[in-house]
Amino acid sequence: MTSRTTSFTLSRPQPSRRPSLSSRLSFAVSTAERGEGEGRDAPAAQQIEEEIAEIKRYEDFTTIDWVQDAAREQMRRKARRRRTAGLFDNGKVTWRYKLWESYDAAQGWIVVTLVGAAIGLIASFLNIITEWLSDIKLGYCTTAFYLNENFCCWGEDNGCDDWHRWTSFEPLNYFLYIIFATTFAFTAAILVRSYAPYAAGSGISEIKCIIAGFVMKGFLGFWTLLIKSIALPLAIASGLSVGKEGPSVHYAVCTGNVISRMFEKYKYNASKTREILSACAAAGVGVAFGSPIGGVLFSLEEMSSYFPLKTMWRSYFCALVATAVLAAMNPFRTGQLVMFQVKYDRSWHFFEVVFYIILGIFGGLYGAFVMKWNLRAQAFRKKYLTKYAVLEATLLAAGTAIICYPNVFLRIDMTESMEILFLECEGAEDYQGLCDADKRWSNILSLTLATIIRIFLVIISYGCKVPAGIFVPSMAIGASFGRTIGIIVQSLYDSFPNSAFFAACKPDEPCITPGTYAFLGAAAALSGIMHITVSVVVIMFELTGALTYILPTMIVVGVTKAVSELFGKGGIADRMIWFSGFPFLDNKEEHNFGVPVQAVMKTDVVAIPANGMMLQSVEDLLSQPKYQGFPIVEDLESKILLGYIGRTELRYAIDRLHRERQITINPEAKCAFSPPATALSSITPITPTVTVNNADFGMSAASIDFSRYVDATPVTVHPRLPLETVMELFRKIGPRVILIEHHGRLTGLVTVKDCLKYQFQAEASENPREDHDIQRGHERLWGWIRTAAGWVSDKVASVSGGRIQLGNGPPPPPRGAGAIMDGDEDLADLADDEGLEMENR
Amino acid sequence: MTSRTTSFTLSRPQPSRRPSLSSRLSFAVSTAERGEGEGRDAPAAQQIEEEIAEIKRYEDFTTIDWVQDAAREQMRRKARRRRTAGLFDNGKVTWRYKLWESYDAAQGWIVVTLVGAAIGLIASFLNIITEWLSDIKLGYCTTAFYLNENFCCWGEDNGCDDWHRWTSFEPLNYFLYIIFATTFAFTAAILVRSYAPYAAGSGISEIKCIIAGFVMKGFLGFWTLLIKSIALPLAIASGLSVGKEGPSVHYAVCTGNVISRMFEKYKYNASKTREILSACAAAGVGVAFGSPIGGVLFSLEEMSSYFPLKTMWRSYFCALVATAVLAAMNPFRTGQLVMFQVKYDRSWHFFEVVFYIILGIFGGLYGAFVMKWNLRAQAFRKKYLTKYAVLEATLLAAGTAIICYPNVFLRIDMTESMEILFLECEGAEDYQGLCDADKRWSNILSLTLATIIRIFLVIISYGCKVPAGIFVPSMAIGASFGRTIGIIVQSLYDSFPNSAFFAACKPDEPCITPGTYAFLGAAAALSGIMHITVSVVVIMFELTGALTYILPTMIVVGVTKAVSELFGKGGIADRMIWFSGFPFLDNKEEHNFGVPVQAVMKTDVVAIPANGMMLQSVEDLLSQPKYQGFPIVEDLESKILLGYIGRTELRYAIDRLHRERQITINPEAKCAFSPPATALSSITPITPTVTVNNADFGMSAASIDFSRYVDATPVTVHPRLPLETVMELFRKIGPRVILIEHHGRLTGLVTVKDCLKYQFQAEASENPREDHDIQRGHERLWGWIRTAAGWVSDKVASVSGGRIQLGNGPPPPPRGAGAIMDGDEDLADLADDEGLEMENR
Repeated sequence: MTSRTTSFTLSRPQPSRRPSLSSRLSFAVSTAERGEGEGRDAPAAQQIEEEIAEIKRYEDFTTIDWVQDAAREQMRRKARRRRTAGLFDNGKVTWRYKLWESYDAAQGWIVVTLVGAAIGLIASFLNIITEWLSDIKLGYCTTAFYLNENFCCWGEDNGCDDWHRWTSFEPLNYFLYIIFATTFAFTAAILVRSYAPYAAGSGISEIKCIIAGFVMKGFLGFWTLLIKSIALPLAIASGLSVGKEGPSVHYAVCTGNVISRMFEKYKYNASKTREILSACAAAGVGVAFGSPIGGVLFSLEEMSSYFPLKTMWRSYFCALVATAVLAAMNPFRTGQLVMFQVKYDRSWHFFEVVFYIILGIFGGLYGAFVMKWNLRAQAFRKKYLTKYAVLEATLLAAGTAIICYPNVFLRIDMTESMEILFLECEGAEDYQGLCDADKRWSNILSLTLATIIRIFLVIISYGCKVPAGIFVPSMAIGASFGRTIGIIVQSLYDSFPNSAFFAACKPDEPCITPGTYAFLGAAAALSGIMHITVSVVVIMFELTGALTYILPTMIVVGVTKAVSELFGKGGIADRMIWFSGFPFLDNKEEHNFGVPVQAVMKTDVVAIPANGMMLQSVEDLLSQPKYQGFPIVEDLESKILLGYIGRTELRYAIDRLHRERQITINPEAKCAFSPPATALSSITPITPTVTVNNADFGMSAASIDFSRYVDATPVTVHPRLPLETVMELFRKIGPRVILIEHHGRLTGLVTVKDCLKYQFQAEASENPREDHDIQRGHERLWGWIRTAAGWVSDKVASVSGGRIQLGNGPPPPPRGAGAIMDGDEDLADLADDEGLEMENR
Repeated sequence: MTSRTTSFTLSRPQPSRRPSLSSRLSFAVSTAERGEGEGRDAPAAQQIEEEIAEIKRYEDFTTIDWVQDAAREQMRRKARRRRTAGLFDNGKVTWRYKLWESYDAAQGWIVVTLVGAAIGLIASFLNIITEWLSDIKLGYCTTAFYLNENFCCWGEDNGCDDWHRWTSFEPLNYFLYIIFATTFAFTAAILVRSYAPYAAGSGISEIKCIIAGFVMKGFLGFWTLLIKSIALPLAIASGLSVGKEGPSVHYAVCTGNVISRMFEKYKYNASKTREILSACAAAGVGVAFGSPIGGVLFSLEEMSSYFPLKTMWRSYFCALVATAVLAAMNPFRTGQLVMFQVKYDRSWHFFEVVFYIILGIFGGLYGAFVMKWNLRAQAFRKKYLTKYAVLEATLLAAGTAIICYPNVFLRIDMTESMEILFLECEGAEDYQGLCDADKRWSNILSLTLATIIRIFLVIISYGCKVPAGIFVPSMAIGASFGRTIGIIVQSLYDSFPNSAFFAACKPDEPCITPGTYAFLGAAAALSGIMHITVSVVVIMFELTGALTYILPTMIVVGVTKAVSELFGKGGIADRMIWFSGFPFLDNKEEHNFGVPVQAVMKTDVVAIPANGMMLQSVEDLLSQPKYQGFPIVEDLESKILLGYIGRTELRYAIDRLHRERQITINPEAKCAFSPPATALSSITPITPTVTVNNADFGMSAASIDFSRYVDATPVTVHPRLPLETVMELFRKIGPRVILIEHHGRLTGLVTVKDCLKYQFQAEASENPREDHDIQRGHERLWGWIRTAAGWVSDKVASVSGGRIQLGNGPPPPPRGAGAIMDGDEDLADLADDEGLEMENR
């Protein structure tokens, strides 16, 4: 065993050392076969760990390889075990090793606990800050400026003397309200643009892709976390029609990423980290809604493409810890996790199902409508407004404040307005005469107006460059619509109390509870926009404890789902993924292409022969960014497939060669990517070759052995396999690339991107889009905006004497929807679009 | 195209007709390529449908092939579409076709709705019958014999005069109680043994395997449904410590199976049917607990190995319909879905977490203890008691009645006792002085006794040959233990009200609610026995509406889960699967074998050469039951892999040959399993060969073409692929067999069974079991029982004058645990064990 060294040895190829082991996958095998406890292997094991750490760094905007990650994790464990065991004892498994092993096993739980606690803490602080900022727009506390209205007037029901409106002059209050709102939005937008562009928006689509294996460096970094946490309360308090739930998920997942990186187990394992991220997404929703189980289900239904029971259990635990910490912090001092916990005393009647169905239909239509128009708004924003992100957010906030202040339901915070709309009238306090039978028609008018305005605002606000979710706005819209319906039904009942339709009502008690309609409307709208079902029911349930309303909620959500399906599959998060062109294989749609994979595969594959390629040619290949990896074939004629080498691995191997051998390597040195020469049907113990042999560099016969980095068992399929099955393989097994092999010969290569391209084409040919009209509409709109902006700009310039100059740079080139990112495109415009990155993963 | 015929044509092999299409998978491809609307294809399409229908019949105790099923479903759709389109119009898609297509698409929803409604109906009738039977043991209604106590005394709180105990003499009541209980159990056991042996037990393990793809004919048939529905109320009412939830799932799934078989879409597609079965499992739990969302999650967490969103949505809908029907039927006339809906007014205190953790630990220990001993009891039952199933159930019921009657908490129905234990003391009615502070110690004693006795009874009762679940008994045990703890904590508080520990309690109000401890204890025990988490929380939640207790519930269940994990993975259902030897790949455990698949594969594979094998030899091969299918190779020397043919397909093809050609076929005729001779990288339109050519049978040069039945794209992997990855492929992609191919050559074959065998061996070598001791213990116990039985038998014989003779046949041969069923074992003892089958799927 003396021939095994930790660095490169200068030696001629030694045929006697065969059978050598060249596959990373099979390396794990062979070490297992050779037994444990060989202390001498420790340095070798250490080297393996280093290699794993290095090679694991995926490039930005690529997808991770789940199969290889799993193999590497096994190797890491084996190597770790060997090294640890070897360091302490010569052969035996010691208690220290056991301790280390338990720590290794417990790491996951430690991480989840820490992350959960951190998420809970962050959530409670954000809750307190948001409330204070929201209230400060309307007034201040005379006893202590840092108290919000609730705390200022602790224990009193309807305001108190300590809480002052800013002035007694109403128009001035209006003006101050607008000023505050605008300032908040401006600050949030500036923060986001300057420090963490990724903190904008809701982040749910991106996180979905990241959990599915996409790599976006910096998206879950520390700066994103910090800025998102600071800007979120500002954005909410600015009164923009945006919610905190999407961003909650984002900061939760950031927290998970930042904390898990401190642990070795997760630092180098991208696919293990995904488990933690799924758990964090659950905790994020859990703290946002005070709904831990809802969070777990949301993570299952919406966020995670792969959700084994283990991850579910992690998510459960993470959400539990986060919610428990939040409950212990008790930010609202009510002992409740959320602002709007309500209880319904009365049950429902079967005849009300008719109205529930109306609510369900509304939810579905709402979702389809908002998605359609919001996507258009987003396209417009991307094309024309990228440069004016801050201005846009500021103007939006100002506009929202101006429009919303006069309406009693729009003026207050969305969560507060929901709390009010959800309430039963009897026994509870009344808000602005909402329960007043005399004010019914004005209430209906006011609520309808609120619904319409809010829909409009959501369409233009969601996606602007501040932290912004769409959950709560949707629920608020649903609640105001639902309450409208509820009041109408109530007045119907009051008008015809003895009709057969209302026969189930008992004569002496109130029969219709408009609050429950608001509650169901909120569920419908949430389900309509996100296309989720079970999680909505559980979330609504955990929000309100309305156990008796579980069947109505399920009916409403069911109807919504059915209506939504008519307008195409996928909620707003899925549409945004499609819109942004992330390589994400949706598991919601069932495809039926009816073509074999050979119709889709790339046939002009650049393969590397197992022997004889010159180092120079290999480096040339590497310098072209369009290849993610190279199949290894016996020779270029026969194309007998031997393995696959990833770009990153090859890059690493060559870099290391250059680094460790300071002398210049003959660029004409031959590279060997030799096959595993093991006898096939026997499993004889194999000596692993842990050295990279590069013989005598001066000689032209020199050979560099890259076998170690070759994956001898890439995923291969038959060319006639249906495309659907191949996509299922991508989705469920998760390789980065699938090779097409026919009778041992390489015939092609297919990636997720190829599948998606085919899918887009197939879909486009089925329903051609009226892109052109939209395009022209956008242009016209932009013309108007420019005219208006020019006029304002002139005015401002003339008023300010030219000191304030509103920029007018040319719009950036649009990036069309439908292009799929996969690491090999020109990232220039993307970088331009997203700005600097402060933190890389 | 005239060469395409629907029956066999006599023709010599026609080389000119190449390239022919031989793979079923690629057939779908080629038809797609050739466009639609060719009316002439209709008969061919019809033939394909027939073939699919025939070949789809899986053999008993085999697993289904998901990959092939998906391919067949595509083919079926294509064929159907073609035929339908062809029948109505020449080429164009007509409105009739569209209508048919919508119907085809809607079939799933129609089936789910029907199934849901049927399940809801069955559930309400069973609820009513069960309650009546339970009450009849204690007394009868004088106004109408068919009313139970609740309905008899409608509107009155604590019994009424109309409801009579049987006698006023208490010992006689005791005796009658025992008689009733014994009769019920006897009837149930007789019914099960005579008409549907599969109706015994809970059925959850088997259904889990069936949903994962195992085929058990008759397990979900109509007779099982009928007998399970009749025997279940009897078994529950007999007072045996068994629950209705497992059987609920079973009859729900039976309903789904029976109804879906009436629809063409499901009749021939075993894997599509699995979707419906998953949905039914959800509905089953939904109606059992009145917990639709809990049911969906149960189906997700426990029943289904593969649960895509589509199935979730189906399950959601099915559970909704079933619960809505149940709610509309309103069997308890309380407007509630379940018997024990409670509300807690008070919230919990953080110091109580200490006790919650105790409850959680209890749950984990309970689960581990019961599983260990119940499995031993089951092994004993299997070995010695198979012949005495009816006697066993009857004696168990008698014993249970004798033991339980004296204890107030054991005497009543388990659900009733839970309802009582869950209640808050304040405001609610008191049962037997449970809330009485003076009776505390007697209550504690009584509850502890109840806990211990019930645990013992559950261990011996679960698995006896009547419909029997373990959910409710576990919950009842947890509830009685929890209430014990609750009372202890309460008395602690009463003793030290001013200690620092209880500082959070407000002085004037009751601080501890023992009912909540019972509630949490029930959750813990349920989670401990089933090893499920999220579904338990949601079920408990939906049962009781205890929204404020969501965090405690989560904590308790979390602790239980953590404790359970220490004692090995998998709940009682998983253990039972292992015990029964079903070929089920668990997705809960993470394996780390560190061996490549070549260590596990069968290398002595019987392959069929593509050309030249005689019909006689093929039939010989088929007559050996040990082969499930045969790889097709170019020739036996080179072993170039060309495809795979399943046993069923080959059987079908040969049977058909014999059937359709009445003349004797020369047994020396050569069989062709020819390869797909398509050019590889091009997708030229291919003419499918829909005929089976068998040339001139008289000649020795005759050749029979089986290419149509050859799967040209079986799942193949590299021999060095890690076993873990192969198992993942089995789990996630679901082929029946994976071929091992190296450089195009067949080197082996692996099935789920091979993987499981290896896993058992690996586990057995890690933790050797003390089988021997158990064996000896069993023998000793059997000796005692025989002695006792002999004594009783003698007594009975002497008393009855020899007319009643209790049989004493020899025990059947034991079938060891750890043997895996996979269709190729001797099913004789199994059939003996399970008895006749009335209905085949």
